[in-house]
Amino acid sequence: MFASHLECPKCLTKYDTEQPHQLCSCGSPLLVKYDLAAVAARMSKSDVAARPPDLWRYRELLPVIAEENIVSLGEGMTPLLKLERLGTRIGMSHLYLKDEGIIPSGSFKARGAAVGVSRAKELGVTTLAMPTNGNAGGAWALYCAKAGIAAVIVMPKDAPAIPRSECAIAGARLFLVDGLISDAGKIVGQAIGERGWYDASTLKEPYRIEGKKTMGLELAEQFGWEMPDVVLYPTGGGVGLIGIYKALCELREMGWVSGELPRLVAVQATGCAPIVRAWQQRAAESEFWENAHTCAFGITVPKAIGDFLVLDAVYKTDGCAVAVTDEATLAAESLLATTEGTFVCPEGAACMAATQKLLADGWLGPDERVVVLNTGCGIKYPETVTSDPRLLQPSDRLPD
Amino acid sequence: MFASHLECPKCLTKYDTEQPHQLCSCGSPLLVKYDLAAVAARMSKSDVAARPPDLWRYRELLPVIAEENIVSLGEGMTPLLKLERLGTRIGMSHLYLKDEGIIPSGSFKARGAAVGVSRAKELGVTTLAMPTNGNAGGAWALYCAKAGIAAVIVMPKDAPAIPRSECAIAGARLFLVDGLISDAGKIVGQAIGERGWYDASTLKEPYRIEGKKTMGLELAEQFGWEMPDVVLYPTGGGVGLIGIYKALCELREMGWVSGELPRLVAVQATGCAPIVRAWQQRAAESEFWENAHTCAFGITVPKAIGDFLVLDAVYKTDGCAVAVTDEATLAAESLLATTEGTFVCPEGAACMAATQKLLADGWLGPDERVVVLNTGCGIKYPETVTSDPRLLQPSDRLPD
Repeated sequence: MFASHLECPKCLTKYDTEQPHQLCSCGSPLLVKYDLAAVAARMSKSDVAARPPDLWRYRELLPVIAEENIVSLGEGMTPLLKLERLGTRIGMSHLYLKDEGIIPSGSFKARGAAVGVSRAKELGVTTLAMPTNGNAGGAWALYCAKAGIAAVIVMPKDAPAIPRSECAIAGARLFLVDGLISDAGKIVGQAIGERGWYDASTLKEPYRIEGKKTMGLELAEQFGWEMPDVVLYPTGGGVGLIGIYKALCELREMGWVSGELPRLVAVQATGCAPIVRAWQQRAAESEFWENAHTCAFGITVPKAIGDFLVLDAVYKTDGCAVAVTDEATLAAESLLATTEGTFVCPEGAACMAATQKLLADGWLGPDERVVVLNTGCGIKYPETVTSDPRLLQPSDRLPD
Repeated sequence: MFASHLECPKCLTKYDTEQPHQLCSCGSPLLVKYDLAAVAARMSKSDVAARPPDLWRYRELLPVIAEENIVSLGEGMTPLLKLERLGTRIGMSHLYLKDEGIIPSGSFKARGAAVGVSRAKELGVTTLAMPTNGNAGGAWALYCAKAGIAAVIVMPKDAPAIPRSECAIAGARLFLVDGLISDAGKIVGQAIGERGWYDASTLKEPYRIEGKKTMGLELAEQFGWEMPDVVLYPTGGGVGLIGIYKALCELREMGWVSGELPRLVAVQATGCAPIVRAWQQRAAESEFWENAHTCAFGITVPKAIGDFLVLDAVYKTDGCAVAVTDEATLAAESLLATTEGTFVCPEGAACMAATQKLLADGWLGPDERVVVLNTGCGIKYPETVTSDPRLLQPSDRLPD
């Protein structure tokens, strides 16, 4: 393993990787640091190309030590689709969709779960707990089942229903809360303090982000070890955006990519846009968003613990933060399906809506290489689609 | 392109590949034939290994001529997972799951749709119609949207609900019928006769099977160009089983694999088991199954048009046909999730139940390399899981 230590991005305190750690004593999330010179000396691009198409192809840049601790369901190397028809329709010549719906559990949360659960297993964790807006809970419940780790999951009662089925069939202990993910987080936090469980909440353990960062590694590889110009990411907790930024910085330090990083765009909903408000104020952190509500439930996060890392990545890459209405999101979901045949989740559709908005504003150029990150499959959100087909009898003819 | 012609497996009549063809004049499905010597001379295993991880890596063995006609959403190279924990639990040392849930639209129907729609586009089709038990309709609707082909879909009213959302968001014309897929097929058949649409019903066009056969190509590649001992396949229309058999025969003729083909097992439900009944009688064809019903809705096919090809593949490989109860299927779905973290569809779970049954019967040996084919993701079937989580208030503590 090439991970050397954990480091606090706020106060720079270092921690070892042998013991389970959660937050830094200063309250900040911890990040995994690697001996990148050693990785660059050991791993080549052709090594990577010859490996199976899952995220473990980047194992030297991942924190798991022993192969027997890897808990994998085949996650990663999701398709990067060029949107020719949609691009032509809206006037963009190099528009891409990274489709994270094509992954175990149907959402990008599988990446964080695969690496997070593998490390938890390696560290000897027997019970973990987490609040979730749904998909992370479903993914962690399933990976924990495979790892033999007990999982306690708390999600808002208004979260989409299908992740409940994932938790149930995986045998996790599932609770609903009449509130938001922040309320679920308080309940989990109290239980963890009392019972000594491992806290798998967003960024409260340092390994989930290592799984998410593989989206950045894959984007670089899929673009032939070049970088696109812009990546739009639906931002709730923001781990994926922080992860993509971390991945590209690591690749640049290794000499595998060069030049400017892509401008990273944090996409939120107008009904829950704390990062956008902070970015507009050029603030370093966000404020709690009251009465949060959007159809893109996964990004209903009123205050993200890693908000300062998200904003830092956006500032450092000359990116931006943009909020879209639910109406625009649902229109973009339909547009993607009818022109490109992809049924994306509302969070991914929000990124498509943001692309159209930023193109109209002139912030995006028509010939830039732009990646819309779709974080999950639309089949987990059937309620976003209206279908009222006509019922025929067997003796009927098909209507005109 | 290396496809030389279409051929009727019953009366051996040949047809060209330039025009759209449906069934043979004798009523049998047509199969695509290739110049396999030319393919073997042109394509190498290392060529394939260096290509992107989707089913188009086998393009010399696929019928699409021009690259611009390829309609792809990134389908194929689904994970082959070794089931260590579950294998240990039931006493099998080499048990594998081929997980077709990790694919666009969440079901293996995406393979047939990708190749079938690509060829339909190449042949100039503008409208196609099909009956479906759900997943094929969802997949074809989405791929047709990308291809710019109008799709007319008819499915039983009792089919799972999520594919309706796929059809609706893709902009397909969707109808329900108060009956089974056989009733949907009659309505579609009549409309096609009157309106001149392309008939995309199972095996009524010769290209869907070419997409499905890539499961067999992938299995061979993922086993290092060796063959497993047994493949269990949930059999409704049976296109995948026929396709896997066709793929392995083609690879053997090319000299890429050698030895015995795997024993192919047609898995059905006790509530709809026409192939099993025929196999028990050593019959060449099946009889219509009255009052068909099973929780594995995708295999509720009372009489498959390709039944004789399914049975032929089973007989030629010394395979078998086996029916399992819905109770065993749902128990296997749970067992897979709790031990291996995979949330499979009921059809895939039926194959797992059949594996347990054939192991108990001694038909499967404990050390054989056995592949359970899971045809779709469980998240399309949330109704198969009971979840009744406790609701907490934000001020509550987590119960013990």
